[in-house]
Amino acid sequence: MMKKEKIKIVEVGARDGLQNEKQELSVELKVELIERLAACGLTTIESGSFVSPKWVPQMAGSDQVLQQLNASPKRSKAVKYAALTPNLQGLEGALAANADEVAVFTAASDVFTQKNINCTVQQSLERIRPVLDHARTVGLPVRGYVSTVMGCPYQGEVDVNKVVDVAQALLDMGCYEISLGDTIGVGTPAKTQQLIRTLAMHLPMSQLAVHFHDTYGQALANIYAALELGIRTVDSSVAGLGGCPYAKGASGNVATEDVVYMLNGLGYDSSVDLQALAQTGAWISEQLNRPNGSKAGLAIAANQ
Amino acid sequence: MMKKEKIKIVEVGARDGLQNEKQELSVELKVELIERLAACGLTTIESGSFVSPKWVPQMAGSDQVLQQLNASPKRSKAVKYAALTPNLQGLEGALAANADEVAVFTAASDVFTQKNINCTVQQSLERIRPVLDHARTVGLPVRGYVSTVMGCPYQGEVDVNKVVDVAQALLDMGCYEISLGDTIGVGTPAKTQQLIRTLAMHLPMSQLAVHFHDTYGQALANIYAALELGIRTVDSSVAGLGGCPYAKGASGNVATEDVVYMLNGLGYDSSVDLQALAQTGAWISEQLNRPNGSKAGLAIAANQ
Repeated sequence: MMKKEKIKIVEVGARDGLQNEKQELSVELKVELIERLAACGLTTIESGSFVSPKWVPQMAGSDQVLQQLNASPKRSKAVKYAALTPNLQGLEGALAANADEVAVFTAASDVFTQKNINCTVQQSLERIRPVLDHARTVGLPVRGYVSTVMGCPYQGEVDVNKVVDVAQALLDMGCYEISLGDTIGVGTPAKTQQLIRTLAMHLPMSQLAVHFHDTYGQALANIYAALELGIRTVDSSVAGLGGCPYAKGASGNVATEDVVYMLNGLGYDSSVDLQALAQTGAWISEQLNRPNGSKAGLAIAANQ
Repeated sequence: MMKKEKIKIVEVGARDGLQNEKQELSVELKVELIERLAACGLTTIESGSFVSPKWVPQMAGSDQVLQQLNASPKRSKAVKYAALTPNLQGLEGALAANADEVAVFTAASDVFTQKNINCTVQQSLERIRPVLDHARTVGLPVRGYVSTVMGCPYQGEVDVNKVVDVAQALLDMGCYEISLGDTIGVGTPAKTQQLIRTLAMHLPMSQLAVHFHDTYGQALANIYAALELGIRTVDSSVAGLGGCPYAKGASGNVATEDVVYMLNGLGYDSSVDLQALAQTGAWISEQLNRPNGSKAGLAIAANQ
């Protein structure tokens, strides 16, 4: 029997997910969520963000979350706890809390970075540079997020060449992987493949990841289209955490359960226990008092 | 500029959708729903079912619905109103009400037909035969539905060869098109392509349609996979009507809005006004006092 090809899932529910949920979660519940996700077989788990709680109150206590995860008897060396670090101060916090890797972020649209972090894309890259330089000296892997790769809420269309330039710059500065974010979920499979084909002419496919939001219901079709071209790293969020899935236009990340269900059907190895993951998705949805954003999760729960 | 390739959408919300909703809709509201759908550019619209209201109370008054649609000043010759007719009595009702086409149904699993219509698949085909014979004499087109093509809630796996045999039998008996139903939404893109490849070895691709339910969130990815192989007819349901999308495991049909959004992105011509369709989906969801099951519909409403 042929060995199944592996897909790396980057679980973003506890960071990109939670920071877009209305309700804040205690440090204890965050730790429980992340340990449950690790027990499901997920090996790369975003666990916090070292930004000011003034701007992102949902991410308060990320230092404690990471410290407790690392001190826990459940700690497995196979699992990587990642943290978002927008600047050197954030990186120092992540290092002090023993994060296994960190992530930096920018976008492919100047209007978007101006509105969100008050600088151009080029300026954001300059801000990121010292983070990457310092991370290199301490041997910490850094992932790079590029937002708005399929479209921008302010300027609309985004030039593919701009995505290439930004991704190239992040790799050159030392990122080991680029996560391509369809921040507003406007992509469709053809556009997804166009983007990836263009990027793959300049950058190694193995260093690209896809990060889809399901705002228009297209995320899973887009992931399938990306897999067809050779993408092997997918970001997703348990229970589709990240904005209430049933509020008008506030739909969040693609649900990890739905991704794993598809990967299983496609014959890939995601290393994830789907039943346990569905239980975790149902549990965290209850804790947040929100509907479960995963269809596979709901269907599996109904059959249990 | 190249002319865009057309995709035929068969809108099933007013029949397959409504018959699986808890709340019953009045004849007036059904007529309004169907006329709104036609005004959006949908040209094949399932409008009722000639079954006993004892078994399917939601479909009561289908004769009046069709009569009112046909008598309406809004009636367009470009639009086909279809009705489900399980037997000769149903066909007579549909003919009396001037349906433009009718549909018959069976499945690819004997356990499924036994549980649902108390006969084997072969016996169901024999029951269907007189419907097709009579329809032929009056020149009425008949569509054939095959349920459980990707899996059966009772027996699990379904043999692809059984799907081929049933589809072939329906075509031989006179159906002009076969709608392949993933009744419980368990399919994934690889399985979808396997099934279609096998069917296409025996039957003309142009006579095959796909009918996905979004129970595990896979519907749109499956439709994309089917389009890749040359399928050009897709069943879908406005607002994802057909089972509450957020009740445990009761998720229904794929939403027409999400399908049209994807088709537009892929460069196909669906002939549908997506903005008007999103408004219709929002309106019918309100009438039924249910959440809108279309993510694209919700996102478009939020941007309006």
